[in-house]
Amino acid sequence: MKTAVAIIGAGPSGLLLGHLLRQAGVDCVVVERQAADYVLGRVRAGVLETVTTGLMERLGLDSRLQREGLIEEGFNLATDDRLIRVDVKALTGSHVTVYGQTEVTRDLMEAAESRDLQVIYEAKDLAIHDVDGAQPFLTYRKDGADQRIDADFIAGCDGYHGPSRKAIPAAVLRDYELAYPFGWLGILADVPPCHHELIYANTERGFALASMRSETRSRYYIQVPLTDRVEDWSEERLWDELAIRFDTLSERGVTRGPAIEMSIAPLRSYVCETMRHGRLFLAGDSAHIVPPTGAKGLNLAASDVAYLAEALIAFHVHGDEAGLAGFQARALARIWKAERFSWYLTKLMHRFPTDGAFEHKMQAAELDYVASSETMQRSIAENYVGLPL
Amino acid sequence: MKTAVAIIGAGPSGLLLGHLLRQAGVDCVVVERQAADYVLGRVRAGVLETVTTGLMERLGLDSRLQREGLIEEGFNLATDDRLIRVDVKALTGSHVTVYGQTEVTRDLMEAAESRDLQVIYEAKDLAIHDVDGAQPFLTYRKDGADQRIDADFIAGCDGYHGPSRKAIPAAVLRDYELAYPFGWLGILADVPPCHHELIYANTERGFALASMRSETRSRYYIQVPLTDRVEDWSEERLWDELAIRFDTLSERGVTRGPAIEMSIAPLRSYVCETMRHGRLFLAGDSAHIVPPTGAKGLNLAASDVAYLAEALIAFHVHGDEAGLAGFQARALARIWKAERFSWYLTKLMHRFPTDGAFEHKMQAAELDYVASSETMQRSIAENYVGLPL
Repeated sequence: MKTAVAIIGAGPSGLLLGHLLRQAGVDCVVVERQAADYVLGRVRAGVLETVTTGLMERLGLDSRLQREGLIEEGFNLATDDRLIRVDVKALTGSHVTVYGQTEVTRDLMEAAESRDLQVIYEAKDLAIHDVDGAQPFLTYRKDGADQRIDADFIAGCDGYHGPSRKAIPAAVLRDYELAYPFGWLGILADVPPCHHELIYANTERGFALASMRSETRSRYYIQVPLTDRVEDWSEERLWDELAIRFDTLSERGVTRGPAIEMSIAPLRSYVCETMRHGRLFLAGDSAHIVPPTGAKGLNLAASDVAYLAEALIAFHVHGDEAGLAGFQARALARIWKAERFSWYLTKLMHRFPTDGAFEHKMQAAELDYVASSETMQRSIAENYVGLPL
Repeated sequence: MKTAVAIIGAGPSGLLLGHLLRQAGVDCVVVERQAADYVLGRVRAGVLETVTTGLMERLGLDSRLQREGLIEEGFNLATDDRLIRVDVKALTGSHVTVYGQTEVTRDLMEAAESRDLQVIYEAKDLAIHDVDGAQPFLTYRKDGADQRIDADFIAGCDGYHGPSRKAIPAAVLRDYELAYPFGWLGILADVPPCHHELIYANTERGFALASMRSETRSRYYIQVPLTDRVEDWSEERLWDELAIRFDTLSERGVTRGPAIEMSIAPLRSYVCETMRHGRLFLAGDSAHIVPPTGAKGLNLAASDVAYLAEALIAFHVHGDEAGLAGFQARALARIWKAERFSWYLTKLMHRFPTDGAFEHKMQAAELDYVASSETMQRSIAENYVGLPL
């Protein structure tokens, strides 16, 4: 098979890129290792910037998002006993939309056939070849047969663990990483959220987040030591802990219910500055990871894809190579700022085992400053809704 | 001797407090261990917030400050090759004034006699007694004779190493400290400054600050390891280093000249939350230290003194004790925010030996965000000119 752009990964990045290219008439194929149901089963973030919803709107794929997404015009930072509301709408004129990443993926997936976007699932043993040369290609096995796709460009939208970044020789790869000394224990349950807006809380018992996917589905997290395993936690124990953190801070208090999903994830910051190598481009999690604090992961993938689609369309439709040449610098400028904000909010809201009494006081002073300064609230809000493309 | 308020320390805090009390007709005496010339010989900061110049104006002691002080309507953050100007005036409507702390002290000192403010210098073996009781008193030796001052209240304006904080029993004292893993090597010289506004630079060779005391007197600093001694540095070597940092960033480049003073100071954050114990009140450096980044030290002392003077005047003139009861909480709310800003700017602009590549990228991303966001510039500016009293 021959195509203009071979896209690896059918998560939201790969599907968004595919749709944007198809909308502009650029030939492309999406290749995914997993089955479609597996991709949809991955529970991820659910707070979308207007950059992200704007791409869905541009594709005309935002009707369910418009109908079911919750417009969030503010969010809250909290200490043990104080809620600091950041009035995002008043401060920036913008908002975010609560709509699960899984739902975005589903909307993109379901529209693929009608938009003539070919997605190949369950492509096994996927390998990337000759990205240094003029004619790169992918090989994989599907239904027991060897397959090959020749392409002008390969877009690596295959996440942190995918093969794309690994196809870049170590000698030219520049990357940066920070591991945080704690994880997030999360629970998803079909119970009404305790508060109509997100609450990020820095309490004496550690960080906690009250979040939601809809008006009937809640998503909560608490900070746990890296040594904790999900088996160490019963649902009851986690609900008890959440009640201690949020019952007095929130509008309704915590409603308990059976877990749809419960898991522990470590927190990491990661940036690969080599986002282009020859004819291979990285976008989304294959190039960067943010800690989930601030919900930048999917949104950053969306801005990468917006830049990359623009560059690939400019090349394939107009023969203009400037966009491809400038993609990496343009993407990294926004990525590093989002990395900074995610790191800042993570540092502000968590208890670090290595922090002393002075550092705790600095967190308290920062929150007190945020509470008293409209300017600082605006700075947080402008990052929260997403810096301009 | 009997007085209403015995003030320990004739630095700017003690003298400011003494003048404010005398202006309101409250009886007080300032007692200082050192000679007047010694006090004036201490080279300190030189950037005054309007909170501080406002106090001098209220005392009618600002004529020289008005004449000789340089109004600074902006300052600069810099990387190796980029100057980010923070337009303080446009962002906040306010400004700072460059005027040496030594000059403030001199103005206050020279006005003491005409304002009927008694200042006793060279008070040896100063000791504080009975601050827990109804009638505290000071003892000291002066010209070989034992002296005693009985007072209603004692104000400890005697700096970090003075006896006041040490008079608070360890069991009730709550304090917080952070030591930074580097020092500042400073040079004062009668040469025109390289730039008309301050430049705080985070370069690959470490932090550097280009500052001034007047249009003909420059003050420069560079970050040095804690193990460096001033003897390790020749003036020539320091000027060479400054030229590397500032020649391309600044308007004029670095002009060299003989050092009036050259010294290394460690950087420390410190807050004593126990600012009142019985009839003893702490103000200024006796209660808190900030790293010099951002020049908050003297200004924070000035706001402490403004609060304390108001409380003491309310008590002695109107018999109102509420101000004294509320002094500590009121002062600490502003102190912690200034500690936060000093810590933030120190962390942003220095190379920490423990920082890895990711942390350096976070500094670069923060500076890039500051450069691109008027909101973040305003946040920095509002702290730089001083948060409201």
